[in-house]
Amino acid sequence: MAKKIIVIGGSAAGPKAAARARRLDNDAEITIIQKAHDLSMASCGFPYYVGGFFDDRNKLLCTPTGVVRDPTFYMKTKEIFAKTDTEVTKINRQDKTVETKNVQTGESETLEYDKLIMAMGACPKMPPVPGTELEGITTLQSMPDADYLRKVRDEGTIKKAVVVGGGLIGIETCEALQLAGIKITVVEMLPQILMFLDWQLAKILENHVKTHAADVITDNAVSAFLGDENGKLRAVKLANGDEIPCEMAVVAIGVTPNTKLARDADINVGKTGGVVVNEYMQTNDPDIYAIGDCTEVPQRMSGNNVHAPYGDLANLEGRVAGENVIQGNVATFPGTIQTGVCKVFDFSAGSTGLSEASAKKLGYKNAVSVVTAGPDKPGFMGAHILINKITADTETGKMLGFQCIGMGDASKQIGMAAMAIMGGLTIDQLVNADLPYAPPFSLAIDNIVAAAHAMQNKLHGLMEGLSAIEVKKKLDSGETPFIIDCRGPEEWEQMRLGVGEHLIPVGALRGRIKELPEDKNTEIITFCKISLRGYEAARILVANGYKNVKVMEGGLMAWPFYREK
Amino acid sequence: MAKKIIVIGGSAAGPKAAARARRLDNDAEITIIQKAHDLSMASCGFPYYVGGFFDDRNKLLCTPTGVVRDPTFYMKTKEIFAKTDTEVTKINRQDKTVETKNVQTGESETLEYDKLIMAMGACPKMPPVPGTELEGITTLQSMPDADYLRKVRDEGTIKKAVVVGGGLIGIETCEALQLAGIKITVVEMLPQILMFLDWQLAKILENHVKTHAADVITDNAVSAFLGDENGKLRAVKLANGDEIPCEMAVVAIGVTPNTKLARDADINVGKTGGVVVNEYMQTNDPDIYAIGDCTEVPQRMSGNNVHAPYGDLANLEGRVAGENVIQGNVATFPGTIQTGVCKVFDFSAGSTGLSEASAKKLGYKNAVSVVTAGPDKPGFMGAHILINKITADTETGKMLGFQCIGMGDASKQIGMAAMAIMGGLTIDQLVNADLPYAPPFSLAIDNIVAAAHAMQNKLHGLMEGLSAIEVKKKLDSGETPFIIDCRGPEEWEQMRLGVGEHLIPVGALRGRIKELPEDKNTEIITFCKISLRGYEAARILVANGYKNVKVMEGGLMAWPFYREK
Repeated sequence: MAKKIIVIGGSAAGPKAAARARRLDNDAEITIIQKAHDLSMASCGFPYYVGGFFDDRNKLLCTPTGVVRDPTFYMKTKEIFAKTDTEVTKINRQDKTVETKNVQTGESETLEYDKLIMAMGACPKMPPVPGTELEGITTLQSMPDADYLRKVRDEGTIKKAVVVGGGLIGIETCEALQLAGIKITVVEMLPQILMFLDWQLAKILENHVKTHAADVITDNAVSAFLGDENGKLRAVKLANGDEIPCEMAVVAIGVTPNTKLARDADINVGKTGGVVVNEYMQTNDPDIYAIGDCTEVPQRMSGNNVHAPYGDLANLEGRVAGENVIQGNVATFPGTIQTGVCKVFDFSAGSTGLSEASAKKLGYKNAVSVVTAGPDKPGFMGAHILINKITADTETGKMLGFQCIGMGDASKQIGMAAMAIMGGLTIDQLVNADLPYAPPFSLAIDNIVAAAHAMQNKLHGLMEGLSAIEVKKKLDSGETPFIIDCRGPEEWEQMRLGVGEHLIPVGALRGRIKELPEDKNTEIITFCKISLRGYEAARILVANGYKNVKVMEGGLMAWPFYREK
Repeated sequence: MAKKIIVIGGSAAGPKAAARARRLDNDAEITIIQKAHDLSMASCGFPYYVGGFFDDRNKLLCTPTGVVRDPTFYMKTKEIFAKTDTEVTKINRQDKTVETKNVQTGESETLEYDKLIMAMGACPKMPPVPGTELEGITTLQSMPDADYLRKVRDEGTIKKAVVVGGGLIGIETCEALQLAGIKITVVEMLPQILMFLDWQLAKILENHVKTHAADVITDNAVSAFLGDENGKLRAVKLANGDEIPCEMAVVAIGVTPNTKLARDADINVGKTGGVVVNEYMQTNDPDIYAIGDCTEVPQRMSGNNVHAPYGDLANLEGRVAGENVIQGNVATFPGTIQTGVCKVFDFSAGSTGLSEASAKKLGYKNAVSVVTAGPDKPGFMGAHILINKITADTETGKMLGFQCIGMGDASKQIGMAAMAIMGGLTIDQLVNADLPYAPPFSLAIDNIVAAAHAMQNKLHGLMEGLSAIEVKKKLDSGETPFIIDCRGPEEWEQMRLGVGEHLIPVGALRGRIKELPEDKNTEIITFCKISLRGYEAARILVANGYKNVKVMEGGLMAWPFYREK
């Protein structure tokens, strides 16, 4: 008898699971039940539709050849029955049925299943503050949200908006609305935007956003949405009392897994709020699987479960569950290393594996990080600077994490780093990584290899590094290290720290050693634009007997604080 | 006493080794001896200078901040003595000296060394045919070559040129000269250009070059260069008798390692023609190291030595040798996986690990390949098609090789694949690779993951695939499989094979099964634009009882032969 498969949810993970199941079993009765009107929306594309990167809304709903993925498409191409505008109201595990209700007609139905796949997604969080019911407050999570914000763009009447939340979606939304000609303020309650980055890189990115486009306020939560007499939003009030006048607020402070159906059916939900699954994406009911944004999955390195609501993982999980509901538990999902990337105006930013902060939180006592900066290709091909942070476990020698921001293509560096982490490559292996080199695309020593070289130098004691944060802390606490900027006078005129540093170009250093403090124990800190010359200078100073020489990692490019110039 | 280090060669590997040695030992006397006038030329950038991507010649010789890397730079910044215009004429291993001669003044000198590093590079091959002495025949290997070809570009008098050799440099030169407004014919004696690719992908690339820019002739060697009464090149004659009129020929048929000095000093040279070194980059004389284009290094997967003249490897090898001459043999170089990439007009093309051909040559009996094609990002972000070929060893499950061509960024895919190969990732691991996803950069299922999915489907028997080559062979030998193009009628109007295929859109297939041959043993071949719908269709046919259904891998996009439209 034909197997009955029901999939709750038709956005990303659900349709993938259904399609995979179909390819493995032509006879199965496969039904997708989707509360929304649309199916298979490319929801990660919403910000780009809103931002005007393209105009045809259907492109978010289409196959690459332009066929809208509606119920007819699913039936004709895949013989999958897709019920849209239909909500599952209850799962009866005893009977192996689900009860559904059409949200338009109110009609209800009970459907039998042999295997059930939960792909119910997640819904946007709202801050627990007054005024969230005001007109002008929205999220960017659903197709109607995208339609609304696109209309805002096209009408051009709204001039000022606040984006609440500086995470990935908040930052993407900020760009989209700024491109729509709206003056944006991003408000983030944490000390930084984009928590997948460590503070320093996030701050550099924040500076970039501030300089080029929108305002960013960190360390300050929304305390209320303020309305006018007509119930329309007029301002966002912050914890420190400031009010930001605006006509619209987009809330993007994260999502909560949709698990009510699961909880009601005594399906286990974990600490992160997601449905608990085993490596087969199977819940505590062997006939029920869960995938996508409604679940939690292991972080591969720590083994801890995390909520990882990413479109790529949703697809991979869907493929695994689709296979397992048909063939028995044959496919496994190993979890995530939390790889992500986003576009931030003309910057990109990404991370894979553990940040330094998360490594420390997880108890890696031997985690060491180094920040590097460098061009993405030769200068004559029009280079952009990328700023990288590599974190390694000195006990195993393995790379734990890699972050990258800048005007070059961070996604390439992050993709390579992700593969390296999944393959368990050590720093000693990465220093000799054989990567593709050609001037239009890359440097002879690719950024990630250069980062590994710097890390190896640090681990071998060739380079004592200080992060910009550590240097700033020293200065703020009144220490007076002798700081040398090793660049040339022209560069100095264009841009400089202004923290009392001395300009001694590396090429002149050997001849000007006598200008340095005589006491060889003096703390000396060297840097340059990206600190390659800074490293060169440090080696010269060590060779000249200085015993306390440090390189400010990543140089000026990685300095996240105020600069004189 | 200060250690005396002599480095023969000042292009890429040599300066890197010298700089690394200096950083590790401030007291060493380090000398680079360079026969050419220039140092540290970015020779991989020559084609882009010739092609007009930039105009300032000095950019090829500069640090990122614009300082020319001349002897003064090396002395001031690194206290390295660089003798340019100076040739090493002999190595006396007994005395540990080298004899040098200034090529301008004729002055000679004998220099002592404690450790010697050979970085003598390679020189371009010339075909053993008449006429190579004619005016108008050049290579693109040295700074003077680049200067000459740039002059050709700027003067604009030469209208027709032949590029002899369809390898990486030949193809880059072809683009450069075509951009200079010269009509180009590339002549390659082998059956394909870019031997690092398997034939099918190389052929697709060749078709692209032919359609958009230059003429390409394969399987036809140069038999003579023909001159006029003034000793000027007037045509290139081919093995088949054809003559191609031209005013210039650029020869790029590969390079020969410069090993005369080594041979004369009884330093071992291997079968590939490169100096033999151990993992420390050390020759049979423990005081002599060899690096860069004059050496051979192990292909990591086969262990066989190969000649791998790439700028990135030169730098890595230089770093290893620079470390070892100072600290004793502490650093090792593991060899190459032969990762490479190049730009070919608006295409890019790259490869890492083993091609299918090389895997078979090396005796991998269980090597299986699959060709896939797909967009590099969502259509709404302006996607380009990439065509990939993945090769795996079914015995170990590991990926052996990955190739990628197309208008997207092949270097990103190749970089990720290189890391995966170095980490020993299996296909079963790659299907769940956690890669960075955001619409401006990538697909939710990245190309390399999609390739792994296709490979896993093939290995699990879900998809029986045929390459376009295999399909063509069947047709040429008179077989009459029932071929189904699963695309839509509009797509069919724009582009089609025209080999007698039947147009049945995948969405209509279930309803039109009766149009197919009744005999369930009939061989059926399905495809679409990239063969995702082809795969879908094949699953439907198998489910309908057809026992001999195959998917043409990569679809129309991977078809390298003549098409009706």
